[in-house]
Amino acid sequence: MAKRRRHAVTIRAVAERAGVSAMTVSNVVNGAGRASAATVATVHAAIAELGYVPNLTARRLAKARATTVGLVYSDRRTPFLDAVLVGTLRATNAHGLQLILRDGEGVTRGEAEGIARDLVRSGADALLLIPPFAELLSGSAVLAKLGVPVAAIATGTALPDVTTVRIDNRAAMFSITERVIARGHRRIAYVAGPDHYSVVAARLEGFRDALRKHAIAEDSQLLLHHSEFDYASGVAAGRVLLERHDRPTAIICSSDDLAAGVIAQANRTGLRLPVDLAVTGFDDTILASRIWPPLTVVRQPVEDMAFRATQCLIAALGKADDAGAPSDEIFDHDILERESTSVTMPCTGDPPRCDA
Amino acid sequence: MAKRRRHAVTIRAVAERAGVSAMTVSNVVNGAGRASAATVATVHAAIAELGYVPNLTARRLAKARATTVGLVYSDRRTPFLDAVLVGTLRATNAHGLQLILRDGEGVTRGEAEGIARDLVRSGADALLLIPPFAELLSGSAVLAKLGVPVAAIATGTALPDVTTVRIDNRAAMFSITERVIARGHRRIAYVAGPDHYSVVAARLEGFRDALRKHAIAEDSQLLLHHSEFDYASGVAAGRVLLERHDRPTAIICSSDDLAAGVIAQANRTGLRLPVDLAVTGFDDTILASRIWPPLTVVRQPVEDMAFRATQCLIAALGKADDAGAPSDEIFDHDILERESTSVTMPCTGDPPRCDA
Repeated sequence: MAKRRRHAVTIRAVAERAGVSAMTVSNVVNGAGRASAATVATVHAAIAELGYVPNLTARRLAKARATTVGLVYSDRRTPFLDAVLVGTLRATNAHGLQLILRDGEGVTRGEAEGIARDLVRSGADALLLIPPFAELLSGSAVLAKLGVPVAAIATGTALPDVTTVRIDNRAAMFSITERVIARGHRRIAYVAGPDHYSVVAARLEGFRDALRKHAIAEDSQLLLHHSEFDYASGVAAGRVLLERHDRPTAIICSSDDLAAGVIAQANRTGLRLPVDLAVTGFDDTILASRIWPPLTVVRQPVEDMAFRATQCLIAALGKADDAGAPSDEIFDHDILERESTSVTMPCTGDPPRCDA
Repeated sequence: MAKRRRHAVTIRAVAERAGVSAMTVSNVVNGAGRASAATVATVHAAIAELGYVPNLTARRLAKARATTVGLVYSDRRTPFLDAVLVGTLRATNAHGLQLILRDGEGVTRGEAEGIARDLVRSGADALLLIPPFAELLSGSAVLAKLGVPVAAIATGTALPDVTTVRIDNRAAMFSITERVIARGHRRIAYVAGPDHYSVVAARLEGFRDALRKHAIAEDSQLLLHHSEFDYASGVAAGRVLLERHDRPTAIICSSDDLAAGVIAQANRTGLRLPVDLAVTGFDDTILASRIWPPLTVVRQPVEDMAFRATQCLIAALGKADDAGAPSDEIFDHDILERESTSVTMPCTGDPPRCDA
């Protein structure tokens, strides 16, 4: 890194160019002392001309610490977590906040409390949570004692002590299931995700609402509980479901990553997609539009939700003590139909028709 | 956010529990004044018991601003950029640094200089660059005048004024091309990516090295320049290459996102992968292991590289003026062979053999 210092412009060079003392330049830069408008203008012109940047130590001393948001994160990378991180970082950047992370992969409630406490001790002025940490920490006396605003995104329900920014998961899963039914599917499997995420129960209700509305009997053999949300769980679910002699014609998944795993397993067993099998995802992560066939999904605007939750935290930091009940904001979701559900099932023995 | 303040523990509650004055608690918390070891222990016990956290304003005043790293980022999301952001954020977190971003999508050199200046004015003490911003800004007088350490990851070459952390792109592309050749492929297409990224020339040299070594004549019709690195460019490349009557049996791509686009287009035209076509990617982003067939790739340890580049920036900040020539660190790469190249081409008219 040789040249960065060699060419660095000093305060003396600026002073010389502006025809003033170094102290005057320093005062203008720091807004201290008294200088005429003309002098200020001359100094600013010299600074711009030379590309002078006040040195690190001076700037460090002149500034207060940025307000800090702590995010409890899961270290196991998924496209959903990437989207959360990108969205949160954009939000904190837009607001001039610092973002600090702690890994909470697989923790218990007590451990989650420890992480929250550690974040606050490390300087977090507010906490942003994602599932399952929001569910783990809601109702916690430790969280209440920390006395910092807390917001969560992408939960399945409102929470009594945490501001939530989410979509209507039940309505979203109802809608995407109806789209699959409209394609003629009747043997529809469902991969639910882990029970301790509040979205899992909400989405399952939506799936069941749609089956009920269309008078399709639920087949418990086609309902897979207890998976994770990740790709490996999708592969495992595909293995269970696609080896059945009466295999489903459609598989509805509670995350894009699960859907990608199901699709990989379907390909591995020689099925042709989307002709032999329809698959749907949930989230519309970067993965959804890049796998083949492109995934029909519920789109959850994760980046916008992270942005809004961060705004809520900032608003709460600006307020006096008791700010009333936590808010619960429901964002709109979308259903994006792509090729993974583009084949309409035949009512007769005709070959399937592709609308892609 | 009702309960967070209602249950917040006050300094008075701690003082009461510890049997000391609020001022004594404040002194213990801030390390000011004089208190006996016994008093300090009593106050700490009361703080732990009640879960007291010193209030925002007090903590804000007590702390200096975090050292800040500015990252020039591209707003167009790709899995590679997600990996860079995740890696950089982990690195800055591990070192207690603040990370600020500026979007530089599609900028000219002059605009890139403006962004760098803006980052430093916004408080960046050091700059972390990715391609193409590293190439755009290297040699810039504006950058030199900013007087902050600058490091770049994932460039194709060393740079005279910027510390670089990269892999040997030429050797990496040579190796993966050899693996494809070892599978019996001779009609091998190459999707290069945009010329203003320094990796593009380095990787193309590696591809040509391998063809030369194995006495395969280069076919200019199978060499696609001027694409972007993204999925849409991969789809477009697939369209051009796969419509030829003498279409290639393998397509080597300079990013995972390009490879995903080629694969989508191959599927859309009815080719069966990997039997009819082998495809390789570059980076090993989250996409590579989740699409079908899973991608054979060059693995570039982006997160580790971002971590190391951040360390270099910190070391440079700690040094006095002229720190000597910028360093250039070459990280090891890996070749990961997955199903996208698992079929060996027949020398005769035999059907292809699948080793997946």
